[in-house]
Amino acid sequence: MNRQPNLAIAGVTGAVGQEFLRILEQRAFPFARLKLLASARSAGKTIEFMGKTCLVEELTDASFSDVDLALFSAGGSISKQFAPAAVEAGCVVVDNSSAFRMDEQTPLVVPEVNPHAIAEHRGIIANPNCSTILMNVPIWPLHQAFGVERVVVSTYQAASGAGAKAMEELEQQGRDWAEGKPLSDEIFGRQYLWNLFSHNSDIDPQTGYNTEETKMIHETRKIFSDPTLRISATCIRVPVLRAHCESINLTLRRPATEQQLRRTLENAPGVAILDDRQANRFPEPLIASDRDEVHVGRIRPDAGQEPGYGYEMFIAGDQIRKGAALNAVQIAEHLIGQPQEART
Amino acid sequence: MNRQPNLAIAGVTGAVGQEFLRILEQRAFPFARLKLLASARSAGKTIEFMGKTCLVEELTDASFSDVDLALFSAGGSISKQFAPAAVEAGCVVVDNSSAFRMDEQTPLVVPEVNPHAIAEHRGIIANPNCSTILMNVPIWPLHQAFGVERVVVSTYQAASGAGAKAMEELEQQGRDWAEGKPLSDEIFGRQYLWNLFSHNSDIDPQTGYNTEETKMIHETRKIFSDPTLRISATCIRVPVLRAHCESINLTLRRPATEQQLRRTLENAPGVAILDDRQANRFPEPLIASDRDEVHVGRIRPDAGQEPGYGYEMFIAGDQIRKGAALNAVQIAEHLIGQPQEART
Repeated sequence: MNRQPNLAIAGVTGAVGQEFLRILEQRAFPFARLKLLASARSAGKTIEFMGKTCLVEELTDASFSDVDLALFSAGGSISKQFAPAAVEAGCVVVDNSSAFRMDEQTPLVVPEVNPHAIAEHRGIIANPNCSTILMNVPIWPLHQAFGVERVVVSTYQAASGAGAKAMEELEQQGRDWAEGKPLSDEIFGRQYLWNLFSHNSDIDPQTGYNTEETKMIHETRKIFSDPTLRISATCIRVPVLRAHCESINLTLRRPATEQQLRRTLENAPGVAILDDRQANRFPEPLIASDRDEVHVGRIRPDAGQEPGYGYEMFIAGDQIRKGAALNAVQIAEHLIGQPQEART
Repeated sequence: MNRQPNLAIAGVTGAVGQEFLRILEQRAFPFARLKLLASARSAGKTIEFMGKTCLVEELTDASFSDVDLALFSAGGSISKQFAPAAVEAGCVVVDNSSAFRMDEQTPLVVPEVNPHAIAEHRGIIANPNCSTILMNVPIWPLHQAFGVERVVVSTYQAASGAGAKAMEELEQQGRDWAEGKPLSDEIFGRQYLWNLFSHNSDIDPQTGYNTEETKMIHETRKIFSDPTLRISATCIRVPVLRAHCESINLTLRRPATEQQLRRTLENAPGVAILDDRQANRFPEPLIASDRDEVHVGRIRPDAGQEPGYGYEMFIAGDQIRKGAALNAVQIAEHLIGQPQEART
């Protein structure tokens, strides 16, 4: 691909769309022209970007005739509707929705894990689920070094995964609560402030797993190219704005000392260790917010498993950034031959 | 013991102390006289209880001469200082602190699990840690029916576990945030609103486990009388006021069908099933608050384990109630020969 492509962002008015712009500027992503696309409802709005006032255009099948590379984050149905037209027009799509993730023809990529898969694309490269990305960054180097046999993960997920309106509703509940007013609950149908709840995605009536959990399981197996990896996931939303946390319990195939495990994580791309036992300083959503790296801490041998084979850790990562927009931009950097690491 | 004992509450001005009073009234606990005890600082205050104005007296070694049964919840050092004097005076102590929990002479009791241990007391009966109690209520019937081989638990703990002042600080942060003021952080030393963090108890520099996690492991083994039970615990504080949640992954020794497992939980004392996959209605802190039962939901076979042997669930329980005050009052009910179940 052209090293200075014509770029488009589809869904630019959303939380991830806005983060695309911030990250393109921060990482000095090279592009010739930039097209800002959104629904008819948002078309005509203007957005300030790099000192210029840019007009938001309506996303249509004709949007991509002069576009080399498009970053999509407007939901699965929009991606299914417009990504094929973009590909038809010769554009490469990095899609943040779940629409194509499990499609066999579509690479699903975390650049720290399987950058080689990018080259196999047929027009679309899928950006994984946010919880999946954040878990994969620290687990992959351990999988390479020691083989991961089994993962038990419980998430502590922020409002941002449900979009900008969900974040606004949570903050509005905070303000309304402080003023003694009734709380609005249009997005989640319940009080979110001072509460938490099982992830609001659909539940499979047979298995009892929700879609978010199923994504973490199946996407990780695809990204790792390891269909035997055993994963147990429980996904929970907590009243936090934009960073997810995950409590991870690992069983290794080959034993590791704690020192070996730590050294592997210290050297892993995209990982920042935050593990100060004396100061009780470990990954937290507010510390991880607006950071690129996945923060990893509470690293310790699991007292409930065979010595050397079981480890626990607690991670935090910015859901909008590494969980979505940054990961997609990193894929785009690979496409133009200028890969860069996550770095805050 | 006298079926209508002279009763004392040590630490009556704290969050658990106040809950003792509510529960004694709600359950019509029979007593002859009630003595309200607290530190010198609180002595002289008055508390309204069952339509009467009661005076708070200073807790001293001389407080227990005319007391048959004392409920202690004033912290470990106060229990260590005054519980022996109470026992010396012929009083039986139900102690909510961690001071005597792992003492071999002291029964550690969840009435739904090991009520028989109460009779073995030598003056003191210990009330377990809140996270331990809430986990034990649903796990014990499964352990009896199928044998639990291993537990992996991650907690979502409320402010209440750190006392009434911690709850006040979290709410104050909510009000200050809404008004754009700086947030006070005297209790936890950090922003708690829109955040979460590893439990604030001390961390063992060698093992990396914090005290809360170690309590869940060792107390459960003592309560279950099963030192072989394998438990991996990660304890996290979330911005919730008074109910804890726990994500629990189980490995059974003997296989169970999902139906067998569910039936066992449905029939378990102190458990309320809240598991509506269609309505996405599962245990939440706000639903569990002010309830007696431990709510259990998200019950499902674990896709990452051998069929029949692995199960996952998500639970919620009121930390101040079943996690502390209610459990202690239930022990007291056994002592006076009038055991009652948890019931909202």
